[in-house]
Amino acid sequence: MKNDSVTAPQGFWAAGVASGVKVSGKPDLGLLVCPTGATAAAVFTTNKIVSAAVQVSRECLKSRKVYGVVVNSGNANACTGKLGLANARRMCELTAGHLGVEPREVLVASTGIIGHQLPMEKVTRGIAAAAPLLSDSQESGLAFCRAIMTTDTKLKKAYRELRIERTAVTIAGTVKGAGMIGPNLATTLLFLTTDAAISKSLLGTALKEAVGDSLNRLTVDGHQSTNDTGILLASGLAGHPPITSPSRPYEQFLKALTELCTDLVHQMALDAEGATRMFQVVVKGAATKAQAVQAARAVADYPLFKCAVHGGDPNWGRIICAVGSSGVQLDPAKVSCKLDDLYVFRNGATTDFKAKEASRIISQRQFVITVHLGVGRDSGFYYGCDLSAEYVRINADYHT
Amino acid sequence: MKNDSVTAPQGFWAAGVASGVKVSGKPDLGLLVCPTGATAAAVFTTNKIVSAAVQVSRECLKSRKVYGVVVNSGNANACTGKLGLANARRMCELTAGHLGVEPREVLVASTGIIGHQLPMEKVTRGIAAAAPLLSDSQESGLAFCRAIMTTDTKLKKAYRELRIERTAVTIAGTVKGAGMIGPNLATTLLFLTTDAAISKSLLGTALKEAVGDSLNRLTVDGHQSTNDTGILLASGLAGHPPITSPSRPYEQFLKALTELCTDLVHQMALDAEGATRMFQVVVKGAATKAQAVQAARAVADYPLFKCAVHGGDPNWGRIICAVGSSGVQLDPAKVSCKLDDLYVFRNGATTDFKAKEASRIISQRQFVITVHLGVGRDSGFYYGCDLSAEYVRINADYHT
Repeated sequence: MKNDSVTAPQGFWAAGVASGVKVSGKPDLGLLVCPTGATAAAVFTTNKIVSAAVQVSRECLKSRKVYGVVVNSGNANACTGKLGLANARRMCELTAGHLGVEPREVLVASTGIIGHQLPMEKVTRGIAAAAPLLSDSQESGLAFCRAIMTTDTKLKKAYRELRIERTAVTIAGTVKGAGMIGPNLATTLLFLTTDAAISKSLLGTALKEAVGDSLNRLTVDGHQSTNDTGILLASGLAGHPPITSPSRPYEQFLKALTELCTDLVHQMALDAEGATRMFQVVVKGAATKAQAVQAARAVADYPLFKCAVHGGDPNWGRIICAVGSSGVQLDPAKVSCKLDDLYVFRNGATTDFKAKEASRIISQRQFVITVHLGVGRDSGFYYGCDLSAEYVRINADYHT
Repeated sequence: MKNDSVTAPQGFWAAGVASGVKVSGKPDLGLLVCPTGATAAAVFTTNKIVSAAVQVSRECLKSRKVYGVVVNSGNANACTGKLGLANARRMCELTAGHLGVEPREVLVASTGIIGHQLPMEKVTRGIAAAAPLLSDSQESGLAFCRAIMTTDTKLKKAYRELRIERTAVTIAGTVKGAGMIGPNLATTLLFLTTDAAISKSLLGTALKEAVGDSLNRLTVDGHQSTNDTGILLASGLAGHPPITSPSRPYEQFLKALTELCTDLVHQMALDAEGATRMFQVVVKGAATKAQAVQAARAVADYPLFKCAVHGGDPNWGRIICAVGSSGVQLDPAKVSCKLDDLYVFRNGATTDFKAKEASRIISQRQFVITVHLGVGRDSGFYYGCDLSAEYVRINADYHT
């Protein structure tokens, strides 16, 4: 079987082990390595309180080359003070030691419970156990994917091939995240690898743009964690002339990267805690793009509507209510709303739609809501999912 | 038994009947009347899409005196276009006919499902049935309270007595609302009566202030309905010299009114859909009062924290996460957090608190969370409640 994991692009090794940080004994420590050194870009949470790993990775990202990323799940290493910061640095040091590089050439990411110190003996043994397992096999790539999961029920991965100046280029990625997913980097943890050759600044721009139109447009519960991190490593080994300007090759790369991230977003939304359906809210006729996105987010974040979706109930009144209270400009006499292609509300009044057809649409695994505000020409969108009793159970029982 | 319902202040009659708007056959039509004419004040939803009743009441509020309010539950008469508007006006006309006053001297309020036309035959019969039942008895007052309920499981009422210049003055109120409760008038429907004599402009100021520090500080699910309406009627029959300036009598009246509204807020929070506990989030050390309120609201609105509260789990990490992503200024090294009087986080690091004690606090029916941001001197608060699987069930099954 062809490798379609994060080790698929040329020049990447991975490994994943169970270090014991998770009491369940599930995999919880992963390494992702580029032995020849990768150009790196990253995006981080905009939460004002960030994990130790985010603080350390922000510093290390200044290095010209990055040789690896060390990730643990089961413990966020956030709100852990100076000891937490020292522990995050130690994870980089230990990994760098095994790779024979500088600690500042290694990035680190953590996810899990907030406010507990990392059990460093277990982490140290885990890194030592993972290092000899590093390989470019698909099995190693998947082991890494498994090691970053928390409440995810499914492993998430995506893969794209493209040709840049007649040379085959590969991009691959994995993401974890099922709850605590809100706007502005709804990634929780995202790792992308590519063998494209591209300058550091363009790599950063491409990552921001791709994430901005995909993972930053998903809300599961409207909040952003202390640990959100998205890392893109480019080995440059594909063999095409390096991309150093926003040329056609750059556009091709960006398009493939955005598609790949959108693919991951769909996987995340459908595996969100307790979720059974996902939807896209498209808002048109807005005064500005920002207002369109704001109104779309208000619908995607509205608990009452998310409950109705869970019940397969086309309660469009809750869509209109959410849009009306979102603070955006609208013309009440011109507002319209469609479920897929079915108008349920048109020019400020309910239509004579077939309730059965509306129920069918909203009971699908995926559907689209389109709202027209009737005041301008701008549009925007957001992804959301239903809210189930299962979400509450998962998050009421998650142990601190 | 002493009357402590909305008919307790001198000069008020009430009635409530089952008109058939609710298919369940529960009470759904109420009248609240001041035969001598009342000075009236009201606050309405800031949703840009409002019910027909809100549009009509905004107009009628301009009348010098208001003689009555007609309310239906079971149908919001929102998103119902011109016919809906005509129906709301018709409700005022019918009530005015029974009272022998002008239609513009009657206010109207509706609550229930959005987007369905009112069954006017039933409403007409209901008003005709209620009018002869009008009386100042407690039973009539309670019948009105019952007629405005939707998913409320408990009738909500509050009562205060005060002395203004040695004269006994009474204020009473009722509120309905269990879901779709968000900031800026989280009242859904609120009706207050008093026999105080007070000028129309001061009555309006008092209502805004009292609601601003009570009902506007409660979030159940963060959104505001199309129908939120709070009405305060003053008969002026208590016999004290009229309040016409922001004097000591005004301050006494405002204090009693705010206490009464806060009492109603507690009843609402504890009867919120599926809720089993309520909490107050107090934020101190903020750069501005607005930022303190913003951070407090972020915690009270955070689904992950609301789930933890439901589970009786002192997951303070989610409090810190919500505050950090709320967009307010804070000093990560100075942030602190208390559950009641127990510090769980101090100066940016976890404390060595007893987990059992934290669990006990968060498992109470009511508790207080205090967060210090470490950057200024301003403070603010918000009320919230837990999020349960029951909330989802109620709102997934609510029929459109």
